[in-house]
Amino acid sequence: MAEYSRFESRVEVRPDDIDMNQHVHNSKYFDYVLAARYDQMERCYGMSMEAFLDRGYSWVVRASYMEHKRPLRIEDAAIVKTNIEEIKARGVKVAFEIHKESDQKLVAKGWLDYTMVDLDSGRPKTIPDDILKTYSV
Amino acid sequence: MAEYSRFESRVEVRPDDIDMNQHVHNSKYFDYVLAARYDQMERCYGMSMEAFLDRGYSWVVRASYMEHKRPLRIEDAAIVKTNIEEIKARGVKVAFEIHKESDQKLVAKGWLDYTMVDLDSGRPKTIPDDILKTYSV
Amino acid sequence: MAEYSRFESRVEVRPDDIDMNQHVHNSKYFDYVLAARYDQMERCYGMSMEAFLDRGYSWVVRASYMEHKRPLRIEDAAIVKTNIEEIKARGVKVAFEIHKESDQKLVAKGWLDYTMVDLDSGRPKTIPDDILKTYSV
Amino acid sequence: MAEYSRFESRVEVRPDDIDMNQHVHNSKYFDYVLAARYDQMERCYGMSMEAFLDRGYSWVVRASYMEHKRPLRIEDAAIVKTNIEEIKARGVKVAFEIHKESDQKLVAKGWLDYTMVDLDSGRPKTIPDDILKTYSV
Repeated sequence: MAEYSRFESRVEVRPDDIDMNQHVHNSKYFDYVLAARYDQMERCYGMSMEAFLDRGYSWVVRASYMEHKRPLRIEDAAIVKTNIEEIKARGVKVAFEIHKESDQKLVAKGWLDYTMVDLDSGRPKTIPDDILKTYSV
Repeated sequence: MAEYSRFESRVEVRPDDIDMNQHVHNSKYFDYVLAARYDQMERCYGMSMEAFLDRGYSWVVRASYMEHKRPLRIEDAAIVKTNIEEIKARGVKVAFEIHKESDQKLVAKGWLDYTMVDLDSGRPKTIPDDILKTYSV
Repeated sequence: MAEYSRFESRVEVRPDDIDMNQHVHNSKYFDYVLAARYDQMERCYGMSMEAFLDRGYSWVVRASYMEHKRPLRIEDAAIVKTNIEEIKARGVKVAFEIHKESDQKLVAKGWLDYTMVDLDSGRPKTIPDDILKTYSV
Repeated sequence: MAEYSRFESRVEVRPDDIDMNQHVHNSKYFDYVLAARYDQMERCYGMSMEAFLDRGYSWVVRASYMEHKRPLRIEDAAIVKTNIEEIKARGVKVAFEIHKESDQKLVAKGWLDYTMVDLDSGRPKTIPDDILKTYSV
């Protein structure tokens, strides 16, 4: 039974994230998850996005799903928790939860399905063994 | 068997939509769908977002799903097609497809599940009959 | 006395451009000018940004100035007028005005001071004669 | 000779801030300054934007100027320093500098000219004495 580590990152709400409804704009929550993954790739998995690019690989989003529970406002900060849910030959499925820092209430949750691609051709690549190991924590 | 009309809007790609991967940033596709819905609410359904707000209602996204097929680039324009997939007591599920204008190829598709809320309380509201009729085209 | 042509582009306001003050977010007006310049480089000067990049050049903003007169709202569209104010050895100064389409009232005006750089080194370059001619319309 | 305190805030670069040139998008630097001002209004001056809104006031940007010296990249963080340069009857002029955290090099500098407005009418207001005192630190 495979279970992968869950890591968390803090993301500050910026005034330019707030939309006409006085809360963080819906699509910005994806950007908060993206920021958390960048942080965690380097800090928690030990392989930054730059390291991927240097090896000629990149990650693209194949599909995403998100449920919104309650909004974040200008005075809030986000705690973004992510964990790998499934490792496939050519990609990983990452689950996430966004919580409000002040009361730890759930703001949103969902998943992102990433495919690893060759940087030059843009075509899907089989994930090399050493990268599989990097993510299998 | 209920089937609802499909409408389309053109959305131009702006340079500030392009990210480090040289294509439209993933989360921006949601903003393109949002822009298309605003346009279509007014132009196709005959009830603009302003009209909703004037009546004390608003729409919030409860959940969303998107599959990415191919990216849009700086020289592209998007054709966003949306249709109501399901009308519920307190919300509507809207399906969308984003196509590249130049060759009509599919860029992304998915759905957004909206809940109608009371503007003051933020609580879900039963959709009034006349608004149900507005959307049942 | 050198005087350069003024060109105009239409930019639609998108819902994600609106901020907590219910109007287009301040910094987005720069993005509207950027979108207009991209459009005009290709359509009016006959040398697109891609053509610059293909020749190994790019443009960077060295300085910018903007006065805000009145805001754009969700129902508005912007007409962005730009003209070259001054051509220097290594850059151009571009003046702009943003008008509200519906009543042609002035929304914002200012200028952007661009430097032409070598794409690889990032260092300023003297603008070649044929490009000088392209802009001297 | 009036001289006002200079305060500083740290702003993290997010992946969605990076544009096609692989550095922080030009207009985003204004958003970093805005984020710093929000932080400093509350933390350093002791009067948050919410407190202004509660009293029926808001701030709008009348004009802005920025010089770009070097870009920030995905691995960077910004240190944003701001100080009031001038207090006028109906507004304040705020100077700013953005530095790269890692080497403290200057990224950008400039100023923002703010007008205090009545929240309902949107018209400029004379700044009340107690607010003048709040800013005169």
